[in-house]
Amino acid sequence: MQPWQAYLRTHRDRFLAELTDILRIPSVSGDPARRADVNRAARWAARRLSAAGLEGVKLLRAAGAPVVYGEWLHASGCPTVLIYGHFDVEPAGPPSAWTHPPFQPAVVNGRVYARGASDDKGNLVLPIHAVEALLQTAGALPVNVKFLLEGQEEIGSPDLPAFLRTHHSLLACDFALSADGGQHSEIEPALTLACRGLCALDVAVDGPAADLHSGVFGGAVQNPLHALARVLASLHHPDGRVAVPGFYELIDSEWDALRSLCVHTTPADEAAFLARAGARAPFGEPGYTTLERAWFRPTVEINGLWGGGQHAVLPARAGARLTCRLAGGQDPVAVLDLLEAHLTAQAPPGARVTVTRLPGHCRAYRMAPEHPANAAAADVLTALYGRAPRLVGMGATIPVCALLQEHLGVDTVQFAFGLDDENLHAPDEFFRLSSWERGQEAYCRLLQRLSQ
Amino acid sequence: MQPWQAYLRTHRDRFLAELTDILRIPSVSGDPARRADVNRAARWAARRLSAAGLEGVKLLRAAGAPVVYGEWLHASGCPTVLIYGHFDVEPAGPPSAWTHPPFQPAVVNGRVYARGASDDKGNLVLPIHAVEALLQTAGALPVNVKFLLEGQEEIGSPDLPAFLRTHHSLLACDFALSADGGQHSEIEPALTLACRGLCALDVAVDGPAADLHSGVFGGAVQNPLHALARVLASLHHPDGRVAVPGFYELIDSEWDALRSLCVHTTPADEAAFLARAGARAPFGEPGYTTLERAWFRPTVEINGLWGGGQHAVLPARAGARLTCRLAGGQDPVAVLDLLEAHLTAQAPPGARVTVTRLPGHCRAYRMAPEHPANAAAADVLTALYGRAPRLVGMGATIPVCALLQEHLGVDTVQFAFGLDDENLHAPDEFFRLSSWERGQEAYCRLLQRLSQ
Repeated sequence: MQPWQAYLRTHRDRFLAELTDILRIPSVSGDPARRADVNRAARWAARRLSAAGLEGVKLLRAAGAPVVYGEWLHASGCPTVLIYGHFDVEPAGPPSAWTHPPFQPAVVNGRVYARGASDDKGNLVLPIHAVEALLQTAGALPVNVKFLLEGQEEIGSPDLPAFLRTHHSLLACDFALSADGGQHSEIEPALTLACRGLCALDVAVDGPAADLHSGVFGGAVQNPLHALARVLASLHHPDGRVAVPGFYELIDSEWDALRSLCVHTTPADEAAFLARAGARAPFGEPGYTTLERAWFRPTVEINGLWGGGQHAVLPARAGARLTCRLAGGQDPVAVLDLLEAHLTAQAPPGARVTVTRLPGHCRAYRMAPEHPANAAAADVLTALYGRAPRLVGMGATIPVCALLQEHLGVDTVQFAFGLDDENLHAPDEFFRLSSWERGQEAYCRLLQRLSQ
Repeated sequence: MQPWQAYLRTHRDRFLAELTDILRIPSVSGDPARRADVNRAARWAARRLSAAGLEGVKLLRAAGAPVVYGEWLHASGCPTVLIYGHFDVEPAGPPSAWTHPPFQPAVVNGRVYARGASDDKGNLVLPIHAVEALLQTAGALPVNVKFLLEGQEEIGSPDLPAFLRTHHSLLACDFALSADGGQHSEIEPALTLACRGLCALDVAVDGPAADLHSGVFGGAVQNPLHALARVLASLHHPDGRVAVPGFYELIDSEWDALRSLCVHTTPADEAAFLARAGARAPFGEPGYTTLERAWFRPTVEINGLWGGGQHAVLPARAGARLTCRLAGGQDPVAVLDLLEAHLTAQAPPGARVTVTRLPGHCRAYRMAPEHPANAAAADVLTALYGRAPRLVGMGATIPVCALLQEHLGVDTVQFAFGLDDENLHAPDEFFRLSSWERGQEAYCRLLQRLSQ
């Protein structure tokens, strides 16, 4: 047994108590009334980094929101690794939906239940405990380490880009590890090589100056709801393909190669995917498997629409919220240009279609499978799970990966241990203690492996 | 001067005070908290009928809602006329939107301002005052008269059909006059020969079992919002024609003939119609004028749609409210059958489309232009305005006309004096005192003319 392994066992109860400590803080970034709690969670994280032996720990500000930084930079000649995590959480929703109160952590049957248990506090503590175990047992870390912990992830990290620009040299590193993410299953690890990007817009259709009585005017003037239905239906072919001209042409060949690589190494488990979706049948772009569609193919998705109501009117206005998940090569602004041109060109007579681009777009992220940090992570995961990780894509967007690539010029290995049945963003969120223990060990092994 | 004309002048101030009396009662049928006020308005109407000299006045009940009846049946050998009106009003909305408080009538510059001034209390009192003037001056009415005044019109008269069935013989008559409706303008009268019918349904699209993250699942399962847009867009051809198979085929030739008659006698004032609509341009079924589309051609209108929201989800469910304005020959149930068949057939893979039919449908109403009551009304209007009435259709639905035709087997002449600039259902509703005076005289003349 390695000395750090013994240390982790000896201090297991304290480490678990620390996890439940931070889980008690309702650091909901989406709720302005919880601002003090987000700050409290930041102070907790800063104290914990200092206690683990990190140096230069400070609480910085990203336009008012707290960011916690800490470093250990005495491994001269070794790589510098930036470790990312977030201490804010999603709102808990109605407490009545929870078996245990969301901010009173309950350890039951090898799981800790609480909002943020898996996303991301349970993962966030893993590298902190690992660093403490290594420093306390070896007196030094095998590589240089910087921590970047933020409190805005659940609201889309709006102030992180400016923060990264401002603190470019403080955060300089060789690559990053994200303690936000997950593995494939309890018995099978995964390496995420790609995440889709994101852009969003609102489309509005204007017709008459005010809502009109559908008896008096119906049939004689354009109804914005009819126009909206027509405009939105024009976004897709009936078979599911996006019908916006030029949309797919932006995808580059490297992205397609990554898709082929992941699909070849990952047996499709379509039934499990559909069961998780609660969907009757797969549906999507012809010529691709369900996993290709969910991980790699870009989308134009209507997320909401509105207009009129229960009354017999033709409303003056109607609209919809659209988001696109982007593939590699699809510049968000270029995609917004294509969408705006297509949507406004669909305006039927008597209706005006306008597009409002929403802030916070993000390119797709990808990382070369052969990147040394990927190779190191694969080695560690293989040793821990007894099998090589699946190479996977991720349909969802992790803005921090693209942001670190854009602003610091570095790649990010997602190295976290959540599983997707852990009720993220839902009631009864939990984290497996087995994942928590495995994650501590994995971080110790990875930091050692990265020094080679 | 006729004796009843002198009587109307002598009692003008009292009659106006009576109008403002009933306008003070906030008889909002759509507000359960105003039930006592609706009952108060009914008692006011009953007392007023008795005071005018009507007999057998009683306050009946239509499933709990008050209906006021009164009669004068001593004109042996003469026709029996049923006079309809309603003493309930629309909600006033925010009082701050009104120049004068909605239930404190203000007489300003020849107009009386109050909720219900034009719709329908100002019109409702006209035949009552006329009957009093005739009875007090001639000692008898020229025809037999029955009054049917209800308090549910603004909520769609839900209990009137059952009431008409129950009181079939009490209400037996030769034809009806509706004191709810209006004229074309201050200088030009109108006879309404037709109103479109109405039916309504809700359509729902079900997809996954719960809302799904659009990053994790987007592109791989059907999005109910995409399905809804496609299903709704399928209701119309791009040129505005309804695309539901069989929809137009139900229209009968008599309705088409009525349309031609009205369109030939009514010069199209499309600019005024569009200005009233606040619409940039006309839009509708090709081959028809704006007035034909608004008055006579049937519609399938989306009145509201819903699903998802601001978040990056594929919602589990989405839906829309649809109403149809019906042409003559279009049985509401037959139209609902066609719509349901069409809508459910459009369900794309992975989505289920269900239709819920809403209660309260109503056939189109029409009346032969040559009906003796129409001829009599036209004579009276021509004498009063100095020009013959326009023959018009009405796009909106007046359920009572269809109900009296169905349950009593009689036609209804709309004989009322509101104008469509009088802010019906809006703040600052008003009625012109000139219309009120003209209406009293018109009712006296019409009752006399009907005895011929």
